[in-house]
Amino acid sequence: MTVPMQLARIIISEISDNQVIYLKEVDGERQFPIVIGICEAKSIDRRVKDEARPPRPLTHDLVVSIAESLGAEIDSVIISDLRDQTYFAQLRLRKDGEVFDIDSRPSDAIAVAVTFQPFLPIYVSEEVLEQATPKDGAA
Amino acid sequence: MTVPMQLARIIISEISDNQVIYLKEVDGERQFPIVIGICEAKSIDRRVKDEARPPRPLTHDLVVSIAESLGAEIDSVIISDLRDQTYFAQLRLRKDGEVFDIDSRPSDAIAVAVTFQPFLPIYVSEEVLEQATPKDGAA
Repeated sequence: MTVPMQLARIIISEISDNQVIYLKEVDGERQFPIVIGICEAKSIDRRVKDEARPPRPLTHDLVVSIAESLGAEIDSVIISDLRDQTYFAQLRLRKDGEVFDIDSRPSDAIAVAVTFQPFLPIYVSEEVLEQATPKDGAA
Repeated sequence: MTVPMQLARIIISEISDNQVIYLKEVDGERQFPIVIGICEAKSIDRRVKDEARPPRPLTHDLVVSIAESLGAEIDSVIISDLRDQTYFAQLRLRKDGEVFDIDSRPSDAIAVAVTFQPFLPIYVSEEVLEQATPKDGAA
């Protein structure tokens, strides 16, 4: 089972190599942080702030235009796994009724999701969400 | 007409937002610089130095895996235009005998080219090469 999430916060620190984004449940209160790189954080931030599009495609636009030029559409982002404190994700593509899940870092997948208006849906597996949001004092 | 080029140098300055790569003719001496961003410069540098691949795909690997999962192969990079001191490029894809040229910044296109071993061919149009390498004292 997967849970719809939304991008709740982006925290960019110019003095750190690691930046943080927070994903929060669309229909709930659980949220968790993902540590990402500065390049992907800036790419996400630029789109969330809806800055003017530069005349040439940026990196994550290129991902979208390659998929679309080959007749596919990018459908959604799925954060499917958490191992050794590292999240694993897929970009879900559809073409001619077929589904293709492409391995991606969550940061790239979310940077692609926010190139769309509205943003593409972001899902997290219930299992990952439980691991990422442990309950204090669980019996 | 296009001229085969190779990546001759990468100059990365941590204190600048703008980095520089040099492309040089494979069968000649003409070369010229292209100013690129730090993210793409680091991505190129990592591959040129043949650093160990991380377990998850980096951004330009994602570009390749999307193309390949949709049955296309990335064939080459073409720097086709120079306008207002800005270079324009394409990634050339092939699928089922068809050619697809996808607009890209030269930096992203070259970052994709160097994910392959050997690197994908990089071409520059003769017209761009002439503009980029003006002859001193031309009559």
